[in-house]
Amino acid sequence: MKRFLVLNGPNLNLLGEREPEVYGSTTLPEIEGKLRDLARDLGVELDFVQSNHEGVLIDRLQDARNWAAGIVFNPGAYTHTSVALRDTVSAIRIPVVEVHLTNVFRREEFRRHSYLSPVCTGTITGLGWQAYTLALRYLASTLS
Amino acid sequence: MKRFLVLNGPNLNLLGEREPEVYGSTTLPEIEGKLRDLARDLGVELDFVQSNHEGVLIDRLQDARNWAAGIVFNPGAYTHTSVALRDTVSAIRIPVVEVHLTNVFRREEFRRHSYLSPVCTGTITGLGWQAYTLALRYLASTLS
Amino acid sequence: MKRFLVLNGPNLNLLGEREPEVYGSTTLPEIEGKLRDLARDLGVELDFVQSNHEGVLIDRLQDARNWAAGIVFNPGAYTHTSVALRDTVSAIRIPVVEVHLTNVFRREEFRRHSYLSPVCTGTITGLGWQAYTLALRYLASTLS
Amino acid sequence: MKRFLVLNGPNLNLLGEREPEVYGSTTLPEIEGKLRDLARDLGVELDFVQSNHEGVLIDRLQDARNWAAGIVFNPGAYTHTSVALRDTVSAIRIPVVEVHLTNVFRREEFRRHSYLSPVCTGTITGLGWQAYTLALRYLASTLS
Amino acid sequence: MKRFLVLNGPNLNLLGEREPEVYGSTTLPEIEGKLRDLARDLGVELDFVQSNHEGVLIDRLQDARNWAAGIVFNPGAYTHTSVALRDTVSAIRIPVVEVHLTNVFRREEFRRHSYLSPVCTGTITGLGWQAYTLALRYLASTLS
Amino acid sequence: MKRFLVLNGPNLNLLGEREPEVYGSTTLPEIEGKLRDLARDLGVELDFVQSNHEGVLIDRLQDARNWAAGIVFNPGAYTHTSVALRDTVSAIRIPVVEVHLTNVFRREEFRRHSYLSPVCTGTITGLGWQAYTLALRYLASTLS
Amino acid sequence: MKRFLVLNGPNLNLLGEREPEVYGSTTLPEIEGKLRDLARDLGVELDFVQSNHEGVLIDRLQDARNWAAGIVFNPGAYTHTSVALRDTVSAIRIPVVEVHLTNVFRREEFRRHSYLSPVCTGTITGLGWQAYTLALRYLASTLS
Amino acid sequence: MKRFLVLNGPNLNLLGEREPEVYGSTTLPEIEGKLRDLARDLGVELDFVQSNHEGVLIDRLQDARNWAAGIVFNPGAYTHTSVALRDTVSAIRIPVVEVHLTNVFRREEFRRHSYLSPVCTGTITGLGWQAYTLALRYLASTLS
Amino acid sequence: MKRFLVLNGPNLNLLGEREPEVYGSTTLPEIEGKLRDLARDLGVELDFVQSNHEGVLIDRLQDARNWAAGIVFNPGAYTHTSVALRDTVSAIRIPVVEVHLTNVFRREEFRRHSYLSPVCTGTITGLGWQAYTLALRYLASTLS
Amino acid sequence: MKRFLVLNGPNLNLLGEREPEVYGSTTLPEIEGKLRDLARDLGVELDFVQSNHEGVLIDRLQDARNWAAGIVFNPGAYTHTSVALRDTVSAIRIPVVEVHLTNVFRREEFRRHSYLSPVCTGTITGLGWQAYTLALRYLASTLS
Amino acid sequence: MKRFLVLNGPNLNLLGEREPEVYGSTTLPEIEGKLRDLARDLGVELDFVQSNHEGVLIDRLQDARNWAAGIVFNPGAYTHTSVALRDTVSAIRIPVVEVHLTNVFRREEFRRHSYLSPVCTGTITGLGWQAYTLALRYLASTLS
Amino acid sequence: MKRFLVLNGPNLNLLGEREPEVYGSTTLPEIEGKLRDLARDLGVELDFVQSNHEGVLIDRLQDARNWAAGIVFNPGAYTHTSVALRDTVSAIRIPVVEVHLTNVFRREEFRRHSYLSPVCTGTITGLGWQAYTLALRYLASTLS
Repeated sequence: MKRFLVLNGPNLNLLGEREPEVYGSTTLPEIEGKLRDLARDLGVELDFVQSNHEGVLIDRLQDARNWAAGIVFNPGAYTHTSVALRDTVSAIRIPVVEVHLTNVFRREEFRRHSYLSPVCTGTITGLGWQAYTLALRYLASTLS
Repeated sequence: MKRFLVLNGPNLNLLGEREPEVYGSTTLPEIEGKLRDLARDLGVELDFVQSNHEGVLIDRLQDARNWAAGIVFNPGAYTHTSVALRDTVSAIRIPVVEVHLTNVFRREEFRRHSYLSPVCTGTITGLGWQAYTLALRYLASTLS
Repeated sequence: MKRFLVLNGPNLNLLGEREPEVYGSTTLPEIEGKLRDLARDLGVELDFVQSNHEGVLIDRLQDARNWAAGIVFNPGAYTHTSVALRDTVSAIRIPVVEVHLTNVFRREEFRRHSYLSPVCTGTITGLGWQAYTLALRYLASTLS
Repeated sequence: MKRFLVLNGPNLNLLGEREPEVYGSTTLPEIEGKLRDLARDLGVELDFVQSNHEGVLIDRLQDARNWAAGIVFNPGAYTHTSVALRDTVSAIRIPVVEVHLTNVFRREEFRRHSYLSPVCTGTITGLGWQAYTLALRYLASTLS
Repeated sequence: MKRFLVLNGPNLNLLGEREPEVYGSTTLPEIEGKLRDLARDLGVELDFVQSNHEGVLIDRLQDARNWAAGIVFNPGAYTHTSVALRDTVSAIRIPVVEVHLTNVFRREEFRRHSYLSPVCTGTITGLGWQAYTLALRYLASTLS
Repeated sequence: MKRFLVLNGPNLNLLGEREPEVYGSTTLPEIEGKLRDLARDLGVELDFVQSNHEGVLIDRLQDARNWAAGIVFNPGAYTHTSVALRDTVSAIRIPVVEVHLTNVFRREEFRRHSYLSPVCTGTITGLGWQAYTLALRYLASTLS
Repeated sequence: MKRFLVLNGPNLNLLGEREPEVYGSTTLPEIEGKLRDLARDLGVELDFVQSNHEGVLIDRLQDARNWAAGIVFNPGAYTHTSVALRDTVSAIRIPVVEVHLTNVFRREEFRRHSYLSPVCTGTITGLGWQAYTLALRYLASTLS
Repeated sequence: MKRFLVLNGPNLNLLGEREPEVYGSTTLPEIEGKLRDLARDLGVELDFVQSNHEGVLIDRLQDARNWAAGIVFNPGAYTHTSVALRDTVSAIRIPVVEVHLTNVFRREEFRRHSYLSPVCTGTITGLGWQAYTLALRYLASTLS
Repeated sequence: MKRFLVLNGPNLNLLGEREPEVYGSTTLPEIEGKLRDLARDLGVELDFVQSNHEGVLIDRLQDARNWAAGIVFNPGAYTHTSVALRDTVSAIRIPVVEVHLTNVFRREEFRRHSYLSPVCTGTITGLGWQAYTLALRYLASTLS
Repeated sequence: MKRFLVLNGPNLNLLGEREPEVYGSTTLPEIEGKLRDLARDLGVELDFVQSNHEGVLIDRLQDARNWAAGIVFNPGAYTHTSVALRDTVSAIRIPVVEVHLTNVFRREEFRRHSYLSPVCTGTITGLGWQAYTLALRYLASTLS
Repeated sequence: MKRFLVLNGPNLNLLGEREPEVYGSTTLPEIEGKLRDLARDLGVELDFVQSNHEGVLIDRLQDARNWAAGIVFNPGAYTHTSVALRDTVSAIRIPVVEVHLTNVFRREEFRRHSYLSPVCTGTITGLGWQAYTLALRYLASTLS
Repeated sequence: MKRFLVLNGPNLNLLGEREPEVYGSTTLPEIEGKLRDLARDLGVELDFVQSNHEGVLIDRLQDARNWAAGIVFNPGAYTHTSVALRDTVSAIRIPVVEVHLTNVFRREEFRRHSYLSPVCTGTITGLGWQAYTLALRYLASTLS
């Protein structure tokens, strides 16, 4: 059975509580629940990791190169600042779909730049928690 | 029954023939076929328009404000240059999902900027023709 | 009798309906009514054109060089992107007053730049529909 | 009876004498004469102030908040450099119309930037001394 | 017999009349006459199109991919603003020589940038109407 | 007894009245009252000056070099535009603490730049009227 | 009793030893001593954390949202590079005062930019270790 | 007898005392003495003005247009920020030589830009107080 | 008989050998052969100079002002860096056509800038060795 | 016996496997082997650390200040983004040689900037694994 | 007897003939004559060198370090492009006064930047050939 | 026997004498001595060239393509300004190691940019004269 990693970066553990007018009121466990339901329908397996540590995210992406068929990755704020994560995504050569809950293009200027987009397979932004399920659908279908 | 507009901008009529190493070998009629199949499953109706004329795209977006429940919009190159289309999307106040076949962030610098992203609901890039079906799924589910 | 062209660019046909908190609730026909009243007082004649097509705006400006004594021009979003319209205004050598309903300097950064202002006679911004009547007054008085 | 301030910044006392090929040959007293005539027609009262001192212009704007119904303001070169005047205009919360005799967009690059435009009600540029009378017409009509 | 398209963009229909001190006094029909003479000498056939509409230029370039051996293209002001035309030139994979009557490098800063030059075969600027005949000579000789 | 200058720049005389949602509702005399109370506790003496004139601020800073042990300086809008005040602060070689009522980093881009910060001893921003008392505390303690 | 977090970022554990000509000779334990003395006077409680790890700083800020009445935060070099810390400060909605020992505006250009200043309550720079005590005073007084 | 104005801007009254390691130890009265000696040799007359007020400098330049044969002008810090002084120099149409005591090109980046240089006859920098005597020599010789 | 200079800058002596995938396999002597053939047809005379030394190119351009009717100039890399050559071309007042073998707009960003284009009559790029013959044709025809 | 730290940043543990067409096929253990051989020849001792965590790299650099005679440091992607590491290198005052396997100047624009280079003793780039041995040779010789 | 070098860069040998409306009609030999006259008065000796070759200018500056008391240097266009000449001026540690005939600040943007000004003693611009005599006066007087 | 070129650019002939606090006190002949010693050990032959002329450096690099196995190149100030030298290095297709004595990243902003680094094999900076010997070691070992 295909296995995918769902990786979340800094502050995403605060979802639902954190500025709900910006990020919505759905919590991370609720999103994981929706993903688990979809995974069951699609017949795939999921691993969930959230960390506020850039280094941990790198470690987990490196580790995933040995077992994951694809990765749904919300790098949070590291999107805009981490060349290291960009290099890891390039290095592991697994399809990675970058997701963002909010429409980053409507916010501060610095959020329009992503170090990760050019090395990910694609990007989904502004569609709320559905970004995660759409990304999983994409990965599951293109890899089957 | 919900009705959606699928709007395609300049040069997308050449899909399949045009630089297939960049844009893939799927033609626009083939993408429309896949969308029609999905629309049937989701119980929604679709209108398809493609034009190379900025003015025609504006006219059609304006017209859609009277009947469409949502719009899947691939503005092609006008993404990067058209403030007029941005204003139209703002004006019509219908959910619009911007889609791009290719990963625009991997290409020329000027393709990283979109006048439309900040006023669209969200954006899907780099996932090939699936961007269209994922966008339709999103619109159909959030509007039901 | 002096004849003037009142030319309106993209999305101005939606005035009144379009983001009224930004553009006000006066419709384009209402503005044209006010202009017609003033024209009667001033003893001049007016032609009205609105188009969402850059090419049509160019065609009409070119055409006006044969009959118009002056032009009141709201180029809408093409203000910020159209070198072609700039070239047409330069080419026709008729007084053109650029008008904008809103205070463009209070909005997005890209709206602060106008390709047209340097080649128009002058510009009136931020004074709502009165920009049109003031522009007409100016043209009528300086040309008499 | 409504009272308005007509405020002129640095070097405008030299109008008529100063680079007439750029600024025209009308003197400031002549412009004030035309404004006085119009004020009589509109049934409003005018105060005239010209100063080369940024501090004096600030003082007079602050003072006007106690009695003026609106202000016609040609800030001259302080347009491009004075954040202090911008703050004063914001602070006094009276309609201020910014006017410029010349088409500033045709001149040096640094003249394209105005610290005042975003906080004024609107701006009239490039229409010579008529900018003053058009601004007064606007203020008189919107405040009646 | 080889057939070439000679395509002219916005405002080039005004040649001869339009700012002759910048663009010269030769009209577009006169240039077409010179090209027809040269075509006869070279034994090739020519089609002429001029339009002020970006969309029409795209349509005609797309159409030419089915019959033209090469294209002489003066995109006028769209040179500086049209990513859509750039994409069309890339898509059709026919040799295109970009020509400009004036030395664009001597004029406004924004005219130094061409979206088209990188995807055209080459560019000829500043040599007046001879740019067209030199471009045709080039195309005729390299394609024979 | 140590004597300090509390110097306020343009528009700070309007505090309390001026955009209270931005600058708060405390007036300048109220702030001076709080400072006087603190001065009494700390056993130091204070001089208060407010002016809208850059030249007056320079004159007063120069004058203070003969008697002041330190300066609490809110340069208002001149913060962002006055190299002359910067030079005066450098020239007088007295400790100067720059204070701002609002968090300037949350406002317009141009407010992020201060010509004065590099030559002042330090800067306190965003803490409302307390910036003044904290600055005075600092000066009184480091100079004792 | 009110409890506050005093949080210090990378390399601040080297204070006193590290480039004393830039950062002064006071060590971090000495600063903590001064803060403890002041806390006793003010009747508040303090927690001290220093870490070189961005992730740890995020974790501790998140944790503090459950118990701290305010935070004195010296983010060290992460000031200039960490969008993640900015997001955490926004998310936790507790008053945070940013402090810097040195006058960052006198040093390298890149030190003039702070990702944190716009989301903190305020900022104190250039006043040495006193920045910490002034920040604590502010928090204690505004929260009482 | 020819009469010249020697005009000095902000902080130049502190010469000799002000950062002597940057500006030298010669005072302004000493420079004026040297100029008076030279004037006697050259058979010309001199007027001296120093002010910290931009408005006063403008007033005095305007006044000088009625009697001065030339102006030696050290605008101090207003060099870098005053468009108003630039406009005055343009308006009065008298030869103005800009002088600076220090080599402004060796100092902060913002000192490399002068609003005045393009409208002055010429500029002398980095040669200390001799800049004044050389400028006077130039004016006296070219005007005789 | 008309005489023209064909001047080649640095590294053009390596043509044919140097990165043939970029510059083609035609050598400089071969290009000179083609030019000599064309010159015979056109009844004009040619001088050929190639040098890697900026100073020699300047000397030769200066020398040519005494005898040449026009110049075909490939400045090689000095195109992008030499203000001195620009000044020489301006100074000698002879028609100069700038030629480049490759499409410089497709290469590194810094190759898009030419100091020479604004002062040359015109520019031909991207058409390989034919650029030389087209330039000669232009010069010969416009000068006859 | 002299002891040196060889410190490697993020993703360098993947050497040999990671994009070998960019980074070569030598693994990190192989490089460490070569360094160990050289260390034996030079009579020095080596410590090896690799981490993907910025915080760990800071901790280890700080720790090394107590025992290391010099450091060979490949900061990987943190080169371009870490002001914190820069500050640590400045703080510890031990010779640090920055090494990069690839020629960073040939890659993406953002890789041309290093926060570390200005505070390291020197930098070796583009010479593959030999960068490590050359750096060690340098440190060993200059410290003996 | 003191000996000075008067060094002139590219195209200055064309003075008088070269664009006289920009550079004036005085030839270089005429300027040298005026300098020789002044040198006689001042009791100093002069050497004159002009070259179009950057390398020759470097060689001559290096050579002058052994015998010259000061240098009057007009670097012509190399002012704007030569870091090598800047390094030479720094290296030789002799007073060098940079002179320009024209007001470089009134011309193209790129002429506002000088690599040499920061390392020369001072600069004189816009005063025509008198720049040379004023520079010589300065050098002769400060060195005596 | 392998032969290498050691090429030095402008002002490097002044080493030892030139700003020794920046460039050290070792002379170029001394460095050449050290290189000769090392060459003997490595069994390779060396040619030494130094020139202040860009053109001479190009000529010598071109010449070396016929006999050199590699080049140690210190381009001095031409590093930052010479596209011509960059093109020569690309053209000759021999391994070139760029060396700099000083840490260029610690100096003026313009020294951080090298036109040569992207086309050289690698770069060694900041390690003093050892840069030359390390470069030679690299070349000798990789070519054997």
